[in-house]
Amino acid sequence: MPTIHRVYNFAAGPAVLPLPVLDEIQRDLVALPDVGMSILEISHRSKTFESILAQAEADVRALASIPPNYRVLFLQGGASLQFSMVPMNLLSAGSTADYIDTGSWAEKAIAEARKVGAVNVTGSTKADRYTRIPSQSELTLTPGAAYVHMTSNNTIEGTEWHELPQVGGAPLVSDTSSDMFSRPIDVARHALIYAGAQKNMGPAGVTIVIIRDDLLRRSIDRAGTLPTMLNYGVHAEHKSLYNTPPVIAVYALGLVMKWLLEQGGLAGAGAANERKAAKLYAEIDRTGFYRGTAQKESRSLMNVTFRLPSEDLERRFVQESTAAGLDGLKGHRAVGGMRASIYNAFPEAGVDALVSFMRDFERTRG
Amino acid sequence: MPTIHRVYNFAAGPAVLPLPVLDEIQRDLVALPDVGMSILEISHRSKTFESILAQAEADVRALASIPPNYRVLFLQGGASLQFSMVPMNLLSAGSTADYIDTGSWAEKAIAEARKVGAVNVTGSTKADRYTRIPSQSELTLTPGAAYVHMTSNNTIEGTEWHELPQVGGAPLVSDTSSDMFSRPIDVARHALIYAGAQKNMGPAGVTIVIIRDDLLRRSIDRAGTLPTMLNYGVHAEHKSLYNTPPVIAVYALGLVMKWLLEQGGLAGAGAANERKAAKLYAEIDRTGFYRGTAQKESRSLMNVTFRLPSEDLERRFVQESTAAGLDGLKGHRAVGGMRASIYNAFPEAGVDALVSFMRDFERTRG
Repeated sequence: MPTIHRVYNFAAGPAVLPLPVLDEIQRDLVALPDVGMSILEISHRSKTFESILAQAEADVRALASIPPNYRVLFLQGGASLQFSMVPMNLLSAGSTADYIDTGSWAEKAIAEARKVGAVNVTGSTKADRYTRIPSQSELTLTPGAAYVHMTSNNTIEGTEWHELPQVGGAPLVSDTSSDMFSRPIDVARHALIYAGAQKNMGPAGVTIVIIRDDLLRRSIDRAGTLPTMLNYGVHAEHKSLYNTPPVIAVYALGLVMKWLLEQGGLAGAGAANERKAAKLYAEIDRTGFYRGTAQKESRSLMNVTFRLPSEDLERRFVQESTAAGLDGLKGHRAVGGMRASIYNAFPEAGVDALVSFMRDFERTRG
Repeated sequence: MPTIHRVYNFAAGPAVLPLPVLDEIQRDLVALPDVGMSILEISHRSKTFESILAQAEADVRALASIPPNYRVLFLQGGASLQFSMVPMNLLSAGSTADYIDTGSWAEKAIAEARKVGAVNVTGSTKADRYTRIPSQSELTLTPGAAYVHMTSNNTIEGTEWHELPQVGGAPLVSDTSSDMFSRPIDVARHALIYAGAQKNMGPAGVTIVIIRDDLLRRSIDRAGTLPTMLNYGVHAEHKSLYNTPPVIAVYALGLVMKWLLEQGGLAGAGAANERKAAKLYAEIDRTGFYRGTAQKESRSLMNVTFRLPSEDLERRFVQESTAAGLDGLKGHRAVGGMRASIYNAFPEAGVDALVSFMRDFERTRG
C-alpha cells in the first residue's frame, strides 16, 4: 500500500478531521458492514441510519453532558441559515433581541435579525476592529429581551469568550460555529447553541442546534406562517428526520464524536487545544517579529491570528509555508497576515512544525 | 481483497449510486491526489474545490444542454426547503401562483406556498387518489400567474408527466426531485427546476436549482426582507459559495454527472430507464396477480408501484425479497403494497432479479 501524502491543514473550515475517522469512512465507503450499501446510498428511514443518528445524538449528549430538557437537532444550511432561523423562531413583534457585536459573523447575524424584528446591538468592539471581547460592564442589556445573541469564537478576528456573559434571566443564544466541543461547555447556561460542523465536529453539510425545550413553544406557536423547514419545533418533533438529512455528514460527525470521547471528551480536547495554542502564542510573543492581532486576554484557542513586519514578508511566509506542507495559513482579508486554525483534530505535531517553521523564517528574514 | 457484499437497493431515496463512483470516492477518501487532504476536509475556498464545483456545473450544463441564460445553483435543504424558497422569491402580494396537485409532495409544496401568498390549486387528481397525471383540459390556469408549479414525478404514487403542460407565458416551476436527469429535459420550457440530488444525481445533502436569469430580479428586489440564505439572487451572485456548501455531496454529484455523460448522457439514461421500467411493468401486467397502482398512461419510469392480492402476501413479499438481497421494496404507507425505485444508477441486472423473484413468488403463491 503506498504511503498517503497528507499536509498540515490550517484552514479555517472545512478543516482537518481525525485520521482514524477518515480511515473508517474509507474502509466502509462502498458498503457498510452487513448492510450491502454505501453510507452515500442508504435510506434515511432505514434501521441502519436510525441507529447511526441515535448514536450520534447520544454521543453529543454524553460529550457535553446535555441536560434532558434540551433537544439536539441535525440540520442543514450552516450557521448562516441559523442567523435567520433564530429570530424567525424566537423574536416576536413588540420584543427586542440583544446582539453582542464581536466580529464579522456577529455582524451578519445582526443583519439577518434586523429583517425580522427589533434588535439592540450591545457590547460592540467594532471601534477596536474587533480585537477583543467586551467586558461585562460594556453590555447594556434590554430588560425582558427575547434573547441575547453572542458569538463564542470569532473565526476571522481570532478572539474568543473565556467566560460567558451574565445575561440575567434572558435566554442566551450562542453561535459556537468555530469552537463548539473544543472545550467543556455549560449547556445549562444557554437556551440555544448552534454550529456548523465543519470546524471541530465533522465535514461541511450538517449543522448542530441544541435547544431548550421551552423555546420550542415559540416555534410551534408560529407554525402557520413560519416555513416548515425553518421551524425548530418541527425538526424536534421529527427527531431531525422531517425530511432527508445529510446522511454522510451526520455519519462522519458521529465518528468524530466517538473519537472525541476516546480522547477524554471535552476536558481532553480542551487540554490539548490549550497546549497547542499556548505553543503558538509563545512563539508569537517570543520576539517582536510576529505580532498577534487579538488582545491577549481575548485570544482564541482555535484561530491564531498574527502579522509579520511587512506585507511582503507575509506573502513570502504564505508561499514558503505552503511549500513546506503547512497549508491554509493565509489570514482573512479583513485582518490580513496569517491565521493558523488549530481545531480539535489538528495534530500537535503540526503546531510544532509551524513553530519550527516560524523560527527558521524569522532567523533568515528577521 | 475480500469481495464486497452489495444488495440491490430499490429505496426511494437516498438511493443506489454507480459503483465506479463509489470506488473513486473510496480510493481518494483519505487524500485527494496531489492535494494531501480529504474531500471531507478541504476548504470550499480552495482552488481544488473551486475546480470541482466548476466541473460539476459544466457537466450539469452539458448533460441538459442548459441555455446560457440559466444559472445552476448547488444549495442545501432539499426540495422541502424549495417549497418555501420558490414562493418567498417569486410570489408577490397581489399575484397568484398556480399549483398542479398530483400527489403528496405537491400538497406539501402547496401548504408552504399558502403561507406566503395567494395560491390557485388546479388540475388536482386527489379525487382519483393521485393515480394519474391530469390532462391539459383539466388545468384552469390563472391569467398572469406569478408561476405555475408542477411535480414532474410523484415518488409516492408512482406517476410521472410524459409531456409538459402548456402554461402559456407563465413561468413553469418544476419539482423534479425524483426524475431530474433520468431522461432528456427541455430546460428552455421551464423557468425554474429544482431537485434534491439523492435519487438520480448523488447522495443526500445537496439540492440543484436551475433558474432563468430574469427570475433573479424578483429575488434581488426583496433582498431587504428575504433571509439571505433563501435568496436565489445571492446564491447566483456568489456562484453557490455564499456560505460553506456541502462539499462532499457536490463532489459526489459531480462524479455521477461524469458517469452519466459516459453512459450517453440523458438520452442514454432515458433509454436505459425505459428499458428497465418496461421489463417491470410487463411482469406486473403479465397476469392478474400483480396490480399496478398508477393508471397506465401516467406510469412513472422511476417508481414502479404495485400491489399483491392481499396484505398478507405483501408482507411475505417484502420479507422474502429482502432476504433474497432485493432491498427497500416496501411501498409508502399512503399507497401500500410495493414500490420499486429504479433510478439512473439502478442496474438492469437488479430489475431482472426482481422480475425473476416476482415470477417465482407468483408461481408458489398465485
